[in-house]
Amino acid sequence: MKIAIAQLNYTIGAFDENTEKIIRSIRKARQEKVALVVFSELAVCGYPPHDLLEYRYFVQECEIRLQQIAAECHGIAAIVGGPSVNPKTTGKNLFNSAYFMANGAIQKVIHKTLLPTYDIFDEYRYFEQNTEFSLVNYKGLNIAITICEDLWYSQPTLTGYGKDRLYSVCPMDRISALCPDLVVNIAASPFSHMQGVIKAGILTENAARYKVPIYYANQVGAHTDLIFDGGSMVVNPTGIVCRMKLFEEDFGVFDSDEMARAGSDSYTLPPDNTIAQIHDALVMGIRDYFSKSGLRSAILGLSGGIDSAVTLVLAVRALGATNVRVLLMPSQYSSDHSVTDAIALARNLSIRYDVAGIREVFGQYEALLAELFRGLGSDVTEENLQARIRGNLLMALSNKFGNLVLNTSNKSEAAVGYGTLYGDMCGGLSVLGDIYKTDVYRLAAYINASREIIPANTIEKPPSAELRPGQKDSDSLPVYDILDPILYNYIEMRKSAEEISDLGFDSATVNRVIRLVNLNEYKRYQTPPVLRISTKAFGPGRKMPLVGKY
Amino acid sequence: MKIAIAQLNYTIGAFDENTEKIIRSIRKARQEKVALVVFSELAVCGYPPHDLLEYRYFVQECEIRLQQIAAECHGIAAIVGGPSVNPKTTGKNLFNSAYFMANGAIQKVIHKTLLPTYDIFDEYRYFEQNTEFSLVNYKGLNIAITICEDLWYSQPTLTGYGKDRLYSVCPMDRISALCPDLVVNIAASPFSHMQGVIKAGILTENAARYKVPIYYANQVGAHTDLIFDGGSMVVNPTGIVCRMKLFEEDFGVFDSDEMARAGSDSYTLPPDNTIAQIHDALVMGIRDYFSKSGLRSAILGLSGGIDSAVTLVLAVRALGATNVRVLLMPSQYSSDHSVTDAIALARNLSIRYDVAGIREVFGQYEALLAELFRGLGSDVTEENLQARIRGNLLMALSNKFGNLVLNTSNKSEAAVGYGTLYGDMCGGLSVLGDIYKTDVYRLAAYINASREIIPANTIEKPPSAELRPGQKDSDSLPVYDILDPILYNYIEMRKSAEEISDLGFDSATVNRVIRLVNLNEYKRYQTPPVLRISTKAFGPGRKMPLVGKY
Repeated sequence: MKIAIAQLNYTIGAFDENTEKIIRSIRKARQEKVALVVFSELAVCGYPPHDLLEYRYFVQECEIRLQQIAAECHGIAAIVGGPSVNPKTTGKNLFNSAYFMANGAIQKVIHKTLLPTYDIFDEYRYFEQNTEFSLVNYKGLNIAITICEDLWYSQPTLTGYGKDRLYSVCPMDRISALCPDLVVNIAASPFSHMQGVIKAGILTENAARYKVPIYYANQVGAHTDLIFDGGSMVVNPTGIVCRMKLFEEDFGVFDSDEMARAGSDSYTLPPDNTIAQIHDALVMGIRDYFSKSGLRSAILGLSGGIDSAVTLVLAVRALGATNVRVLLMPSQYSSDHSVTDAIALARNLSIRYDVAGIREVFGQYEALLAELFRGLGSDVTEENLQARIRGNLLMALSNKFGNLVLNTSNKSEAAVGYGTLYGDMCGGLSVLGDIYKTDVYRLAAYINASREIIPANTIEKPPSAELRPGQKDSDSLPVYDILDPILYNYIEMRKSAEEISDLGFDSATVNRVIRLVNLNEYKRYQTPPVLRISTKAFGPGRKMPLVGKY
Repeated sequence: MKIAIAQLNYTIGAFDENTEKIIRSIRKARQEKVALVVFSELAVCGYPPHDLLEYRYFVQECEIRLQQIAAECHGIAAIVGGPSVNPKTTGKNLFNSAYFMANGAIQKVIHKTLLPTYDIFDEYRYFEQNTEFSLVNYKGLNIAITICEDLWYSQPTLTGYGKDRLYSVCPMDRISALCPDLVVNIAASPFSHMQGVIKAGILTENAARYKVPIYYANQVGAHTDLIFDGGSMVVNPTGIVCRMKLFEEDFGVFDSDEMARAGSDSYTLPPDNTIAQIHDALVMGIRDYFSKSGLRSAILGLSGGIDSAVTLVLAVRALGATNVRVLLMPSQYSSDHSVTDAIALARNLSIRYDVAGIREVFGQYEALLAELFRGLGSDVTEENLQARIRGNLLMALSNKFGNLVLNTSNKSEAAVGYGTLYGDMCGGLSVLGDIYKTDVYRLAAYINASREIIPANTIEKPPSAELRPGQKDSDSLPVYDILDPILYNYIEMRKSAEEISDLGFDSATVNRVIRLVNLNEYKRYQTPPVLRISTKAFGPGRKMPLVGKY
């Protein structure tokens, strides 16, 4: 039997568009003599729909579209993800479901059992947990339908509590007892640069333990901060048989007999190139944020430093050189090379650049504030003011010409609050906000691998905000080779100051860094959405009190 | 037996302070011959600790402090809320627990059964659900210990799915079967102006149905956006016997025999004065945000309009006149009365005001941008620029003098995006962000009830942003008497455009308003935390996609 996986990029709530995409794939599959075509989790509305699920009319629209899609299923079966209403009078309103469609109608609705409710996931907010297990028999094959996390029974808990697993129910044990011929897993599993190998491992372990092939259909495309990498797979008890494209829509047709028989030599997972994957993830993240918002063009402030340089290259790759412009906004504290480096990069990329020096506007603010500030010396106020003037200029161009401002802050500075609210922390989307500074350098090296796009000087000079004479990042912060691993252990690994010091870091430095992270929750509360590429990004997946003593 | 309720204001993660407060209340209770003193939910760390619960060291600190508190319990028993580690090898790391302490040690740990995971609640993110029920016997009394939501079995689901209830397990049925003499409910139940009567109803219904007195100990105090109103109560099958103070710490001692015997005439709940309660909630919200952040003084931009006027009065009541200053920032589009009204208010309140006209700075920006904007007319760009200059000036004073900027936007404008990011949407805390404009007028009337504090002209003149000549809010928006109920039905009641039109609103207006709400998610993503006084505030309790078509 031929089985197809349609790996598609949906837009949340775009019912016409999503339905059309799904129906087009059903028709294509039928033309290719496919018996069953599989779509991803909550495909009909896009994942995650968040609180739109609390609106009855939104779920009604899902139901209407699912009927419409089912009506297309003649001579072919389909599995499509969508919400379904919990018919009981108590409990959560909905199930997170997979609709099995054939003969022009919905034949069966299977619900998700394991509902991830951690990090960016909040499925228990909306969905009731499934407790009943059954198979679908189609053309003589017994098919088990699972939904994403249902295969993740071995999900560990990372946080030092010494637990074996997060879940107490094992859906695959229950399903396996029913003797399926194959397992379908419809998923919306977001990218994180540490998860690639883990995902493949989960699939192959399940296939091996339960001695059954698994067809994994993942969502592709970005939804604001969340980047879904695709990479749908077929695995069997010997390992991966096939993996589909990463970060692109794809359509794969597989023969179920071949898939079941394939040996361990049939496919080798290419070695993970973390930086290349992050690069591709960010490019897709930018592209989808713009296209799904109906926007075409971006603007950013180009400082001559490495963060804005890398952001710019990614933006140009996502949107095209004609859709990206930059503004250089030197002050009296800007070094000459900051302007020449920025211009060199803009020329390398053939993009429009303009120069608007901020000295006079800054002077006018100083004059206005002179009376109020009489007798007080210059301090961080004046540094922030420069950053905010730059923010205003970018926003003014954004308002006038309709370009979205891309934020250029990295994760290290966002973590310790080394940035100005409404100044360099402004923008519609943070491109590098989940990338530690040391990884920004790796991205720059990757971008420059075949030829020098980013000027060498931008990469080699010591990082500086250039907000006062001779300023360097290292005046205020530990060097990034020390700072970043401390941040990683605190943020991603949830280690205590003591545990981090025990790894060999100076304890005073560790305490200072953690204190800075905690004190600056209020700044991060107001920053733009951050493209998420790690297991713990700033944003909705990391909920920390703003006010408190910790 | 004498039972005390200690209604205290905790700070999240402030272990020294919280522990000391709890111990002080235990000692006080012992002096008053109390047998059992009850504290609120997660008292030891403050509620809600959010992702701090993912840090093992944080929960270890809770455990240490709970031991310390238990060691104080000689000659008295206490019930104290705190997290406890789930000892099983699978499942969530923690339980949300009540510690029963006596004879200098923890005697029993009872876990929460119903874990709210909706709106601002995300307890299933951290906690495993309890499945075992038992009583504590102390001095001959059988005490059932429940935790907040455990009494809310009848919690409805508001969202049009026709469900009877959210929960399928009824802890009180299970507990009642064990024949308790009284029920203790430790809670961290946030204020919302629609919930006061509902809360009292839930408690009295439970007491009547299960024929048992209930001692409800609620947290008081604000944690960033969340305002806990206190109002701890003793109820018996005839109704409320006693309610403790709202929005203040309190300590009540109750005789259990008297409480059980008291008749329905023993107490009458004062009629809800919604606006007075909102007023008190906001004052406490401001005060706690500052005191718990270690800040003392505030600044805001006073425009002569009603929003900044009401915000200012609330700030002065929370922080004192000497700790609040305002900046008047007129432009060429400001009316004369905007300055005179603002000055009149500042004088009424005896606070410092300064004037910094923005015309020259604005002119300098225009000169700088003239080349880039050549041939293009004035539009929203120039309006936003004025708002952003004002934001910069407030932030500059904030940086220089350490005053936190209070945001003055109301819920109606936040909803439809009638505000400028980094301009009038800036600040550390949004005071009125959960108050519709029509309620801002009600607050102003309440403030002016005994004498004219806010100048009548500020209240009576038509609302205007004064960013271009002759501008009025009603040029761009429906009048607030129409806008606000449309917003309420969409945001709080989760109704569809069709359902709202069916209530008698013009369907084109409804569609336009809903479209504006949806389009402006991106702005609200970057706004300061909003003091929450409704059942659905903007912020973490309302998660809507930024990018999507809906």
